[in-house]
Amino acid sequence: MDSQRPQRIILGIDPGTNILGYGVVLVDRKQAHYVDMGVLDLRKEKNHFTKLARIFNEVGALIERYSPDDLAIEAPFFGKNVQAMLKLGRAQGAAIAAALHRQIPVFEYEPRKAKMAVTGNGAASKEQVQTVLGKTLHIEMDNRWLDASDALAIAMCHFYQLSNPLSDRSASTSWKAFVDAHPDRIAKPAKK
Amino acid sequence: MDSQRPQRIILGIDPGTNILGYGVVLVDRKQAHYVDMGVLDLRKEKNHFTKLARIFNEVGALIERYSPDDLAIEAPFFGKNVQAMLKLGRAQGAAIAAALHRQIPVFEYEPRKAKMAVTGNGAASKEQVQTVLGKTLHIEMDNRWLDASDALAIAMCHFYQLSNPLSDRSASTSWKAFVDAHPDRIAKPAKK
Repeated sequence: MDSQRPQRIILGIDPGTNILGYGVVLVDRKQAHYVDMGVLDLRKEKNHFTKLARIFNEVGALIERYSPDDLAIEAPFFGKNVQAMLKLGRAQGAAIAAALHRQIPVFEYEPRKAKMAVTGNGAASKEQVQTVLGKTLHIEMDNRWLDASDALAIAMCHFYQLSNPLSDRSASTSWKAFVDAHPDRIAKPAKK
Repeated sequence: MDSQRPQRIILGIDPGTNILGYGVVLVDRKQAHYVDMGVLDLRKEKNHFTKLARIFNEVGALIERYSPDDLAIEAPFFGKNVQAMLKLGRAQGAAIAAALHRQIPVFEYEPRKAKMAVTGNGAASKEQVQTVLGKTLHIEMDNRWLDASDALAIAMCHFYQLSNPLSDRSASTSWKAFVDAHPDRIAKPAKK
């Protein structure tokens, strides 16, 4: 693709130490379109280092496949204990290195912010996030995709951030305030 | 170098988020020889991502320069708060990815273990570690090298581990027990 294209591809990554989720959206004329999502099961890797190598390699392979303009990564800053955070940080570091190694800029979003951007509720459940994403992107979702849809939510969060960089300064913390501020983000009920 | 060589090169890395230290030793006929050490100052990087990119690139450059057989990394598992551990984990993840990307095996050692291996005291100060390393490897040390010498200690810890893989099962927690168990690791006073 040439550099004049009005499109933009966003790769969202949710790098856990057991499951890595990814989601890809194409932004075309200010609209986001679903491209792909999936998960990488890391539970059978024999040790933490083979997990990190796999994260680095597979994120690299996703970048080669989709040529994203940006990588958006889920980055929780709180919770869990220090050991879990160290391991999570390593997984993030391997994924981030795979992108920076290829000169892809990286953006990080807290899960709460991604949930807020997608559903209007920073404390939304995975199921709620999935339901709203399904409606927004016109895709069928089911429970097999919970980890992948978290990554898709990160990609969508970055899309909203690009569309409206000031949105995180707004004080819209309620659903009503969110609806008022972002009528374009609300899926309309299908006509019967 | 061909694969038949009896030598082994160990690259030790102490990846902090502000300073990355490195130390290189050559193992030849069961003796460790000093090759190089240094630090990378990351404090002027403009953000956390440029730090991670620099860590990935510079560890890669060290690997290209010294062709190590093994990378040994300092990996504290405790202390600090969860945010600090997440950032530290990311720095580690970027350094580890740089090695695994080049098929260099990675070994991790807790700082306490490295201090124990080098000085016989798991709670040794940086200055003590430096003094013992200076004697063991016949190099002059001064305070400018405190961060680098920590990385050199990690490389030496891996050397001792390779020489005596069972040493971490020993219960030698005192200096005397360490001396008794490892007379070869003690620098002899120079004859006057």
